[in-house]
Amino acid sequence: MPEHFADRLASRINDIGAPACVGLDPVLEQLPAEVRSACADPASACRRFCTGVLDAIAGTVPAVKPQAACFERYGPAGVDALHAVCARARQLGFVVVLDAKRGDIGISNRHYAASAFDGLDADALTVSPYLGVTGLSEFRREGRGLFVLVRTSNAEGDELQSLPLASGKTVSEHVAHLVSAWGRQHSGVGSAGLSDVGAVVGATKAAEGQRLRTAMPDQVFLIPGYGAQGGTLDDVRQLLRPGAQTLGAQGVLVNAGRSVLYPAGPESVGLPWAQRIADAAKRFARELSTLR
Amino acid sequence: MPEHFADRLASRINDIGAPACVGLDPVLEQLPAEVRSACADPASACRRFCTGVLDAIAGTVPAVKPQAACFERYGPAGVDALHAVCARARQLGFVVVLDAKRGDIGISNRHYAASAFDGLDADALTVSPYLGVTGLSEFRREGRGLFVLVRTSNAEGDELQSLPLASGKTVSEHVAHLVSAWGRQHSGVGSAGLSDVGAVVGATKAAEGQRLRTAMPDQVFLIPGYGAQGGTLDDVRQLLRPGAQTLGAQGVLVNAGRSVLYPAGPESVGLPWAQRIADAAKRFARELSTLR
Repeated sequence: MPEHFADRLASRINDIGAPACVGLDPVLEQLPAEVRSACADPASACRRFCTGVLDAIAGTVPAVKPQAACFERYGPAGVDALHAVCARARQLGFVVVLDAKRGDIGISNRHYAASAFDGLDADALTVSPYLGVTGLSEFRREGRGLFVLVRTSNAEGDELQSLPLASGKTVSEHVAHLVSAWGRQHSGVGSAGLSDVGAVVGATKAAEGQRLRTAMPDQVFLIPGYGAQGGTLDDVRQLLRPGAQTLGAQGVLVNAGRSVLYPAGPESVGLPWAQRIADAAKRFARELSTLR
Repeated sequence: MPEHFADRLASRINDIGAPACVGLDPVLEQLPAEVRSACADPASACRRFCTGVLDAIAGTVPAVKPQAACFERYGPAGVDALHAVCARARQLGFVVVLDAKRGDIGISNRHYAASAFDGLDADALTVSPYLGVTGLSEFRREGRGLFVLVRTSNAEGDELQSLPLASGKTVSEHVAHLVSAWGRQHSGVGSAGLSDVGAVVGATKAAEGQRLRTAMPDQVFLIPGYGAQGGTLDDVRQLLRPGAQTLGAQGVLVNAGRSVLYPAGPESVGLPWAQRIADAAKRFARELSTLR
């Protein structure tokens, strides 16, 4: 039987000492000039950049989150690059969270799961609950994780997620309860007390953090919105599982994308791009290591 | 300036005489034995089957809806097959609705739009509103359409979409109002009175049809769930725009997948598979032609 996803993640977090995830969102115009000039096409440039990033941050953060859209836009060559990036990430020991936000009716979900887990061999996948939470069952695989969108970091998310229901809950709180119940029903929790069904909860929505944590005691929160989008360490503290004994059992995985991939500031000048990224990842991991 | 998407669709519907769309959901195990045995790999089989279907139904229905998941599961080769299928569909004059149910924060939506509209040259794309409706703006392209998931045909959709809000509306009714307002704000309506921002509304949810139609007077409803999933012609009637002068202006595009792709019954025995599919598409289009 494959190791429980949440256990594997918690153990990697404890090994590394920081619940940190680096988002791999390669955007051609922002890639280092030397990467762009060395590559014949955009997909190759994304591949070269991301594998360079992986080599630079290996051992510094436990997880990476490739953004499917950035690769998909370049068609078959882009998907091929995504395969290569996921393979390299697995090889280097990263937990790979494919950020694809898929969600459809059952049989289509089965196809998307095949793409993420058989094809790309991702450890986990982000999925959308609009077509229902129990309908996500076709995504479930032993040893693999899911992160259901519950409360996203973007401002427009409020249009749907903040709506007050007749029950007194908001839509996202209701989804949180569904996710928690569904996670328990299917696979219970691993030895760290965590479900392999996690939730996406933005760092920018920490004001709702306590209610969401109460509703989802077993969930790992994949937390976007840290850094460039305004989320802080104090925001993340609102989302921790109370009473957890280890960093990995605290149930958070904080993502930073732009602030690591495209570090700015005078101190970077003159350093090779991979070194600047390695330094930015170390700063990010150091910040998060204080959560323990 | 490119032609308004909803005008192009309405005009094709009027030319053909039926608001019919055939879903291209190739599932390896269900493909005709002769297609499978003639192809070296699953992606080639999906491509060969779908191009055969397109040739068989050209001139019978105005639109097709390729399901991205069915192709994506085969990696780069699958995406390559999807490109070929979309290209052939455009060549044969079909309106191509890519069913991918994408939805993310703004910049990722821009990448997905590039994939659908630049890469695959689809006429329209299905998108999910969980991260907000106005956040879907990055998907907008002049001359291209969107279909926002509002009320899906699957039973599990109720878990989120049927929730009663404090306002008295359900979640899907609220999304319907957002979609309508957002559609008007961005591009108004074409000469048929229809927005290029449409909505997915399942035939199996026709009981709510009148409220959804009132909330979304300008939207083309992309209607799954007809036939195999239980939706009937009477269900579709509940979703028509009242007072429309032409079939195309009635604001519906009804999808059938399995019932056309994998027709069953004794009458099919002995006929070549493409002929059976052509016959099933003709029956489907004939049924829908009576909506006028």
